[in-house]
Amino acid sequence: MAAHTRNPRQSAPQQPAPQVLEELATALVPALSPGAVVTDPDILAAHSTDEAPDCPGAGAIALVRAKSVEDVQATMRFAHAHHIPVVPQGARSGISGGANASPGSILLDVTAMNRILHVDAENFVVTVQPGIINQDLKDALAPQGLFYPPDPGSVKLSTIGGNIATNAGGLCCVRYGVTHDFVREIRVVLPDGTLTRLGRKTAKGVAGLDLCSLFVGSEGTLGVIVEATLKVIPLPSAPLTAVATFPNEVAAARTVSQFMAEGVVPSLMELMDATTIEMLNGFGDFGLDATVGAMLIMQSNGTDAPTDVQAFARVAEANSALDVAVSDDPRDSEDLIATRRMVQPSFETFARAHGGGQLLDDVCVPRSALPEFFERLDEIRAETGVIISVVAHAGDGNTHPAIFYDLHDPSSRDAATRAFGQIMELGLSLGGTITGEHGVGFLKKEWLPRELDEGARRLHRQVKDAIDERGIMNPGKMLGSL
Amino acid sequence: MAAHTRNPRQSAPQQPAPQVLEELATALVPALSPGAVVTDPDILAAHSTDEAPDCPGAGAIALVRAKSVEDVQATMRFAHAHHIPVVPQGARSGISGGANASPGSILLDVTAMNRILHVDAENFVVTVQPGIINQDLKDALAPQGLFYPPDPGSVKLSTIGGNIATNAGGLCCVRYGVTHDFVREIRVVLPDGTLTRLGRKTAKGVAGLDLCSLFVGSEGTLGVIVEATLKVIPLPSAPLTAVATFPNEVAAARTVSQFMAEGVVPSLMELMDATTIEMLNGFGDFGLDATVGAMLIMQSNGTDAPTDVQAFARVAEANSALDVAVSDDPRDSEDLIATRRMVQPSFETFARAHGGGQLLDDVCVPRSALPEFFERLDEIRAETGVIISVVAHAGDGNTHPAIFYDLHDPSSRDAATRAFGQIMELGLSLGGTITGEHGVGFLKKEWLPRELDEGARRLHRQVKDAIDERGIMNPGKMLGSL
Repeated sequence: MAAHTRNPRQSAPQQPAPQVLEELATALVPALSPGAVVTDPDILAAHSTDEAPDCPGAGAIALVRAKSVEDVQATMRFAHAHHIPVVPQGARSGISGGANASPGSILLDVTAMNRILHVDAENFVVTVQPGIINQDLKDALAPQGLFYPPDPGSVKLSTIGGNIATNAGGLCCVRYGVTHDFVREIRVVLPDGTLTRLGRKTAKGVAGLDLCSLFVGSEGTLGVIVEATLKVIPLPSAPLTAVATFPNEVAAARTVSQFMAEGVVPSLMELMDATTIEMLNGFGDFGLDATVGAMLIMQSNGTDAPTDVQAFARVAEANSALDVAVSDDPRDSEDLIATRRMVQPSFETFARAHGGGQLLDDVCVPRSALPEFFERLDEIRAETGVIISVVAHAGDGNTHPAIFYDLHDPSSRDAATRAFGQIMELGLSLGGTITGEHGVGFLKKEWLPRELDEGARRLHRQVKDAIDERGIMNPGKMLGSL
Repeated sequence: MAAHTRNPRQSAPQQPAPQVLEELATALVPALSPGAVVTDPDILAAHSTDEAPDCPGAGAIALVRAKSVEDVQATMRFAHAHHIPVVPQGARSGISGGANASPGSILLDVTAMNRILHVDAENFVVTVQPGIINQDLKDALAPQGLFYPPDPGSVKLSTIGGNIATNAGGLCCVRYGVTHDFVREIRVVLPDGTLTRLGRKTAKGVAGLDLCSLFVGSEGTLGVIVEATLKVIPLPSAPLTAVATFPNEVAAARTVSQFMAEGVVPSLMELMDATTIEMLNGFGDFGLDATVGAMLIMQSNGTDAPTDVQAFARVAEANSALDVAVSDDPRDSEDLIATRRMVQPSFETFARAHGGGQLLDDVCVPRSALPEFFERLDEIRAETGVIISVVAHAGDGNTHPAIFYDLHDPSSRDAATRAFGQIMELGLSLGGTITGEHGVGFLKKEWLPRELDEGARRLHRQVKDAIDERGIMNPGKMLGSL
């Protein structure tokens, strides 16, 4: 429809001409806060990748450490004028390659913009800059009796801006929802440097299209989030915690599905399979029973917690639970959550000792499909021969199968890649999605077209091309294969 | 950017040439279910307006009563080929003119597509056609112990498709959220007739841009919703109800703000001012105390209800409540909600007896701004001299001031129009929005550009123009002044 000379979704603009590098020095540097522009190759290299394995991330021409909205605007104006790709970056703790450098790109780091601008306890909203770390926000709110629920695995590392750009989830989503459910209003710098406000601070509002939601989860492909007003809630009371062990994953998955079908809303419902428990035990002394086939950690807070926990125990026992233990000691709860959060480090340690390769899948399926998911995962294990360990935000049907392989063995790598794809195909065949919370980034960009139908693919292209006509926003990632 | 010859947001396409009417008969009629196309002028006229006062709604060339997705697709293909505007219609119970006929348009009525396609009690989702009436869905779900919360004033009339197209709210939003919070997946027919699926059925998912949210609340300007998968919840237990009366609205508003700031989440928090109570008493025998200045109806369900109600009574009494009454009798609750739902009919009756004119505003402000809102509303009453009655979903800060005027008195009409605008300006000045739940439609289209900044206006144009290149989707309404 438009008279573009390039496809703004696929091809990164060409390497800039030498005069662009000159203008970077003469036009961009003076327009920004002192010291904001970095071109040292080592620093560029260190900032060119997130935590995704095996994704390309090279060719950045500069790193901008924005200190203000004006810095972001000036950077975008410069990039827009010169058709230079821009990669917005937070903590680069993502695991899909969405924050990796594109060839010829400016890396636009907003982590220095990390202040809380306003806490409105009366209306339960807080306004922050994008670079604030999720846990830092939680810690600042707690003394005021306020709580910002979203808690991705990276909660202690990742920024709110990155959480919004990826619509981050976490352990608490089963009760409280995902990042999207807490974003009221954002300020965004558009590809040409224009600053705009999307959404609203009020509890309700229907004035115009919901463009705020369009930017939530857009992975830096539409603009740069420079401020956010978030809904917060009263700090919840300490939860009751129950732990149940099972002979196998299918029994644990059936427990989740049947328990949740009773209408109870726990504040946490995590599943770990036997391989995960084995890797945790290999990583540290967490006192986990190595003989069980799967474990569920369930929490409930609020007045209904005692009956919720009883209901959970009843359903677990009806599904062949080996053991069910309940605790109201906050330390037990903290220990269990700390153990759960050690899963990813334990996976990494295992991977390092076994060839270095790890592919982390992220499919989300209807809860009732979890038992079949685990059954058919065994078939994928058998067919490909790779080791797969699974941890899951089971209450949401959101599984994280980790596939381990030898980076230096092509056949091992092939088998892992095959398993990675088969797991996404399995998720789609069960009515699920290829990514529940990790995002598409670079890692799953070839898979996005398989989840979307022809009409949805066209809508994505139309919206992207309309907002980012020059195709400079984070090219070659999420929308790069549509 | 694109080579459009017209602005697809503003101008309705010209009246079709005579051959289009001929092709309607020869090409569209045979492509649709028997009897779907109606051109009888009386029937067209009867289908050309919603419940909004004083909005244009004429010039439709045909009504299509779609019986299937294929009917909708065939209609859109025909309209697209001939550049004919299409106005998607549900029950036409809206009050902003969003479903009114545009000149030369086809009215596309989906109320015959009203079936429940699937109830998935295990995963708490239900899939419906767009024409099902909200209350009919609630009634069908209740025997299965399931509940679909959104409950706009039109709950017994309006369709789920219309609710999604306007992101409808209601009384229960203070606890459960708005329609948007319950839409998991929609199937949409795009302007050229392409059918697509947006969103997903799972609890979480981040594969691609959130285009499902973009269509929720888009008021028929982007496509036609032909199916929806909605989240449902367990049927809640019967609530406790408290009613408090106050000497004035400001005391009631302070109660709402202070009570909600304690972090309690009631299931209902409605405010009625003295004028509303007077109009209700004039309409029927509801046993309301005519001497009070304002009334709050508060409900809470679940285990915490008794303490919630106590807290409410305490805060009300600290704010000069004249009386606080609590009931756990479901009949009292039903009577009160029934009374609350009679507000709009009582307004209409009052209007008919006082010159016939009524403008209903819908601003939503931060809850803490409610007291100031009521104070400054008195200034607007004084300045314009019009009668304004206010009912409010006060727990969300969502007010509904109704302005009464004499249709046949130009100065009365002018004063009402002035008050209507001043109320929106007041809402914006308090950090609120011009419309909390009624939508922009025709009624507020001149006001939308005042709420949005320049960047947001441009984004609206870019997205609309990209998806609806030919400008045939509900032109001249929500996006008609951007």
